[in-house]
Amino acid sequence: PGIQCAQDYEALADRFIPAPAHAYIAGGSGQEATLRANLAAFDGIGIAPRLLRDVTAGHTRVKLLGRELRHPVLLAPVAFQTLAHPGGEIETARAADATDSCLVASTLSSFPLEDIARATRGDKWFQLYFQPRRESTLDLVRRAEAAGFGALVVTVDASVQSPSLRARRAGFRMPDDVRPANLQHHVQPGQVTLSGGQSLIFQGLMSEAPTWDDLAWIMGQTALPVLVKGVLHADDAHALQAMGVAGLVVSNHGGRTLDGIPASLKALPRIREAVGAGYPLLLDSGIRGGSDIFKALALGADAVMIGRLQVYALAVAGALGVAHLVKLLREELELCMALAGCPTPADITPAFIER
Amino acid sequence: PGIQCAQDYEALADRFIPAPAHAYIAGGSGQEATLRANLAAFDGIGIAPRLLRDVTAGHTRVKLLGRELRHPVLLAPVAFQTLAHPGGEIETARAADATDSCLVASTLSSFPLEDIARATRGDKWFQLYFQPRRESTLDLVRRAEAAGFGALVVTVDASVQSPSLRARRAGFRMPDDVRPANLQHHVQPGQVTLSGGQSLIFQGLMSEAPTWDDLAWIMGQTALPVLVKGVLHADDAHALQAMGVAGLVVSNHGGRTLDGIPASLKALPRIREAVGAGYPLLLDSGIRGGSDIFKALALGADAVMIGRLQVYALAVAGALGVAHLVKLLREELELCMALAGCPTPADITPAFIER
Amino acid sequence: PGIQCAQDYEALADRFIPAPAHAYIAGGSGQEATLRANLAAFDGIGIAPRLLRDVTAGHTRVKLLGRELRHPVLLAPVAFQTLAHPGGEIETARAADATDSCLVASTLSSFPLEDIARATRGDKWFQLYFQPRRESTLDLVRRAEAAGFGALVVTVDASVQSPSLRARRAGFRMPDDVRPANLQHHVQPGQVTLSGGQSLIFQGLMSEAPTWDDLAWIMGQTALPVLVKGVLHADDAHALQAMGVAGLVVSNHGGRTLDGIPASLKALPRIREAVGAGYPLLLDSGIRGGSDIFKALALGADAVMIGRLQVYALAVAGALGVAHLVKLLREELELCMALAGCPTPADITPAFIER
Amino acid sequence: PGIQCAQDYEALADRFIPAPAHAYIAGGSGQEATLRANLAAFDGIGIAPRLLRDVTAGHTRVKLLGRELRHPVLLAPVAFQTLAHPGGEIETARAADATDSCLVASTLSSFPLEDIARATRGDKWFQLYFQPRRESTLDLVRRAEAAGFGALVVTVDASVQSPSLRARRAGFRMPDDVRPANLQHHVQPGQVTLSGGQSLIFQGLMSEAPTWDDLAWIMGQTALPVLVKGVLHADDAHALQAMGVAGLVVSNHGGRTLDGIPASLKALPRIREAVGAGYPLLLDSGIRGGSDIFKALALGADAVMIGRLQVYALAVAGALGVAHLVKLLREELELCMALAGCPTPADITPAFIER
Ligand SMILES: Cc1cc2nc3c(=O)[nH]c(=O)nc-3n(C[C@H](O)[C@H](O)[C@H](O)COP(=O)(O)O)c2cc1C
Ligand SMILES: Cc1cc2nc3c(=O)[nH]c(=O)nc-3n(C[C@H](O)[C@H](O)[C@H](O)COP(=O)(O)O)c2cc1C
Ligand SMILES: Cc1cc2nc3c(=O)[nH]c(=O)nc-3n(C[C@H](O)[C@H](O)[C@H](O)COP(=O)(O)O)c2cc1C
Ligand SMILES: Cc1cc2nc3c(=O)[nH]c(=O)nc-3n(C[C@H](O)[C@H](O)[C@H](O)COP(=O)(O)O)c2cc1C
Repeated sequence: PGIQCAQDYEALADRFIPAPAHAYIAGGSGQEATLRANLAAFDGIGIAPRLLRDVTAGHTRVKLLGRELRHPVLLAPVAFQTLAHPGGEIETARAADATDSCLVASTLSSFPLEDIARATRGDKWFQLYFQPRRESTLDLVRRAEAAGFGALVVTVDASVQSPSLRARRAGFRMPDDVRPANLQHHVQPGQVTLSGGQSLIFQGLMSEAPTWDDLAWIMGQTALPVLVKGVLHADDAHALQAMGVAGLVVSNHGGRTLDGIPASLKALPRIREAVGAGYPLLLDSGIRGGSDIFKALALGADAVMIGRLQVYALAVAGALGVAHLVKLLREELELCMALAGCPTPADITPAFIER
Repeated sequence: PGIQCAQDYEALADRFIPAPAHAYIAGGSGQEATLRANLAAFDGIGIAPRLLRDVTAGHTRVKLLGRELRHPVLLAPVAFQTLAHPGGEIETARAADATDSCLVASTLSSFPLEDIARATRGDKWFQLYFQPRRESTLDLVRRAEAAGFGALVVTVDASVQSPSLRARRAGFRMPDDVRPANLQHHVQPGQVTLSGGQSLIFQGLMSEAPTWDDLAWIMGQTALPVLVKGVLHADDAHALQAMGVAGLVVSNHGGRTLDGIPASLKALPRIREAVGAGYPLLLDSGIRGGSDIFKALALGADAVMIGRLQVYALAVAGALGVAHLVKLLREELELCMALAGCPTPADITPAFIER
Repeated sequence: PGIQCAQDYEALADRFIPAPAHAYIAGGSGQEATLRANLAAFDGIGIAPRLLRDVTAGHTRVKLLGRELRHPVLLAPVAFQTLAHPGGEIETARAADATDSCLVASTLSSFPLEDIARATRGDKWFQLYFQPRRESTLDLVRRAEAAGFGALVVTVDASVQSPSLRARRAGFRMPDDVRPANLQHHVQPGQVTLSGGQSLIFQGLMSEAPTWDDLAWIMGQTALPVLVKGVLHADDAHALQAMGVAGLVVSNHGGRTLDGIPASLKALPRIREAVGAGYPLLLDSGIRGGSDIFKALALGADAVMIGRLQVYALAVAGALGVAHLVKLLREELELCMALAGCPTPADITPAFIER
Repeated sequence: PGIQCAQDYEALADRFIPAPAHAYIAGGSGQEATLRANLAAFDGIGIAPRLLRDVTAGHTRVKLLGRELRHPVLLAPVAFQTLAHPGGEIETARAADATDSCLVASTLSSFPLEDIARATRGDKWFQLYFQPRRESTLDLVRRAEAAGFGALVVTVDASVQSPSLRARRAGFRMPDDVRPANLQHHVQPGQVTLSGGQSLIFQGLMSEAPTWDDLAWIMGQTALPVLVKGVLHADDAHALQAMGVAGLVVSNHGGRTLDGIPASLKALPRIREAVGAGYPLLLDSGIRGGSDIFKALALGADAVMIGRLQVYALAVAGALGVAHLVKLLREELELCMALAGCPTPADITPAFIER
């Protein structure tokens, strides 16, 4: 209806999602400093346009992991999408299919990964959370391979998950019928028994967090390219690249893990510098419109992922909403490229950023 | 009535313009970051005054394209002025006549350029938008020459035109009786047919956008001096100067094209540096009072253009309003010059800017 | 009553002054950018305290023009004080007397300078506005000399006087019975006749503004030390010192002249640097409490002047109010000195400023 | 009830503390610039996390003055705790006992220091205010030694105590039954008689303020380690270290002494630089959550002290509240360490700070 730009889905979403669930989706961790920083980082830089350039051969195609994507807008892994719409991840996958968007399915999806995979013919990656037991983790990988996912995205920045203060204050608790469909037959995390003097965090929750060894192990178990999601430090980026990781997602999980960490856009340039040109880098956290995508590309990303906007559009109008969202984002990006004088993504360099 | 300063016309205007049209005029593109940046840029710098200087021989005369203007306040090209006042551009031209202001008539005027030209004896320039077909463009130029316009101002930053989000949300659509009088007999833009996989933006709308070649071509067709409006990058400025353009308007179209581009005031000093002293530079976007004009002159502009204030004053009181506005702006500028210790525009140098 | 700190007089004053007059007093020129900058400049810097120092021999005495003042808080020249209190400048002078404050009487006082002089036994200076005719100016000087004023403060930053936008919007006009008592028999300013094409500002109002020559002339006419008020530029400061001016008031007239000029506190350090140590420098504009005085002294002022707070206290409680205000300011300054570890004004150096 | 994070005690406290007393506790001195700066300093810096690190051997233990504390959260000295809860300091001490927190008892406690000491088996220090007479001061020290306090914390930044403007405006006065239990038999401060021309501050209140000599004297009188609280300047820190002080508390007294002094967090890095590695440094003022503790440790503190939060939790739920608060702060700190990749306090270095 009154959707004029991608961000309008955000404003509309609270009419379609019950307040507690909306707080869970929209909120960030802690005092939400990182959540705010994500948006402020995009607003804080400008675009330096060039004039009179011929853009009539323009397009938005990008190459990623040896494949050509029609546009650099990926659908980020978002858990439990039935919170937003009964059709959940299946609707999202249909939208991905309709818009040639690469879909990243979450480990914590409400529908089995096989069903999601079947719903889109396009590129799809599987986002992997390490499980308490290695056999569970491996089982997920094997299923993802079998279902035709083309890459693994290992998320490493959210070892301890807890709803945000905002969600808690809104009284959010996960509804009983919203469950991690992929993990029905696996040990659930967080079941550690502590002895006296031990810390719930260090010896408890974090005992299941992946380490460098775990990452190396999983890379040895699969032929799929492995990306790592949640990178913010140049030294980590460099180490990951050195150990053969196929690409990185510069991300702070949309401000949903440790509050106080930097905007991912702020971290992007030094990570690009650390890994050099040509190495696959994605960015998410804070993308709200086409010019944000332009800025991310200009500062070194090959593509971006969309988290909350995707959920909002899903809540408002299911597959149609998500497809419309992607269409709007593409148009906004194209308009931005056209008016800035960049016919293709490759033309969007740091020179187009105004500070 | 209660008009104490030029900017008061802004506050008053919404009583005289219907809300949707007001949103169209006042709004900027996108989230209006550039619109806000325009104002913030002026507020963000100060004036460093000097004491005890004799200013009794003071005046506001400036030389531009070999002509002496009585003051450096030009009336920017503003489309469809009947939106604000039934007398539209004719009223504005009368005000220009009464106040010795140089008028810049838009391609998209509600009245034919010939009528506008007849309404003022003073300096007048014609703002040119490239048309889908070269013969249409050339026809406009020939008519402007014949009507006595003294220069062409080619606007190059608004190849894709669309109302702002603000305007859309306010339900604005161009009234049926508001039409581009100069273009009645020409092909309208935006009629391209796309094949599958083509982009509405790149292969559609932008197929009619002017390029360096088009600019060179039009310069070869006319003896009028050609200025280019919408310049923000020093390298573009330098290239335009090199190809023989007669002067530049440093402008972001009042924040109405690509949102996120810099305030024109911010771009001004580096453009002045790129083109050197003596080359004609105008600035618009964000001028709201006499001290803004002072700041623009100090940072390298030879003169400024007034967009929205002009429309507001037109809406409030027609030709009288616009004339009064110019008078107020001049007085505010003179007061600023006097108290800063600058008797003439030539005295207003960067040394008078406080950071 | 509920006065806990000097600034509380500000909050209370609007109950004692009619709204239009209050707007006239409180307001600044234009959009009040300089007015705001004055306050922000003090808030923007911090104090770096030192510990465990013995301050039991502490005091606030300062030397100025060869005289010792008991404290560095002067009462700034403020015109037409009967606007705030029927007793006007006489009440203020009594407060100066009671608190050993140096009083600076304005040219535009509601009572004759002789009456004001009689009301205080303490130090007093006369603030001089140049008059349309030299004989009027000289007459004022002779009367000030005869009345026992110890110095002239020539104000040079307010050649064109006009009420602020805020005052105009509040409908302020000077009441008929408020008149410049010192100027009853002199030609009033602003009576110039303009010929066509001349500017009201340049050839009109500014024709009576003092220049370097006028300043030199008046210095040749009197044995009184001459200070200049309204200095913001280091080069002006240096030139004034070179021509024999006895001291400077770094001031922007409380944000009442040209809007957009810098906070006087911001200008202070470079002016101190330009004139060197030992040369008398005062500062006003924005002082609202004892720690502001501390900061001004730390950045190079020998003393400060209080404008609006003085008027507010006068309005609230006449001489008693002004005396109480000075007492509060002194106590606040002393507390600040004590807790910062500075027993005397001479100890307050830039090392005590935290940035 | 709805306590989700440590800071929630702040929001809840005003339902448990009468408004005037709340204003006294919550307020800062003057215009509260330092109070605001304390919070802004923490918000103004970010955390730079590292990935995939093994933190399963993590803990929060720190060494201080040769003792191992289970966590770096100390309870700051807070006067007159019966204002917040009838059980006052006894409740607080019980919470310290239950949570293995080091308690710092104020000279101005509502209960005698001996009773407080008895209420906790854990580490405890005594905060010393110098008294008008040396024998009173010495008597306090002897009693603290006898009661088993393990260190003296000499507070040197609050020689002149006065309620804040906020407290005054709220009509706060110390209730009659709230008295400094430790000082019942001693001369009260502030009883100096002044002669004419003397200053209430310099010759009055400050005559009892401690100097370097007083500090040296008290250090010669006791075998207890002496820390100094209220240090903000690197040179003072260096001098204190040089004279044998056992450690420093970088603090501005929670913004309750001189308004306008810097945030203690801002002062911390240069003080750490001045004293070198290994020298005991604590920080307080502005700690509101676990990530603030993390930031303080990263910038050079060995431990932190909690002022207002402690009082708020005490008011809300007595000993239980304070114990819960400490538990929350620890958990928040541990989560922050875990997600940032720091298993122990020693791992938290400046490299984990993002600017
Ligand atoms: C409701 C919600 C659930 C999410 N679930 C996952 C998840 O299961 N796995 C994951 O790696 N990231 C998850 N994320 C993070 C997103 O993949 C992405 O990093 C983030 O949303 C990007 O920021 P944005 O929301 O500002 O676009 C989730 C985000 C949201 C908002
Ligand atoms: C309602 C409106 C219509 C405009 N139409 C045109 C136009 O037809 N051609 C053009 O070059 N610029 C056009 N402009 C831009 C102005 O020429 C000018 O660049 C801008 O308004 C300056 O910013 P200001 O409004 O802050 O003064 C228009 C601006 C407005 C507000
Ligand atoms: C109502 C009013 C009248 C003033 N009249 C004079 C004047 O007659 N002569 C003068 O030199 N300055 C005059 N000033 C400026 C003050 O001397 C002083 O520079 C200014 O008030 C300082 O700023 P503050 O108000 O922030 O303290 C006046 C200021 C006010 C507020
Ligand atoms: C109500 C109150 C009373 C205090 N009393 C004392 C005291 O007696 N001695 C002392 O050294 N500090 C005292 N302080 C300061 C604290 O020890 C500590 O430095 C400060 O509260 C830390 O800042 P925070 O409140 O932001 O945590 C007091 C603070 C408050 C809020």
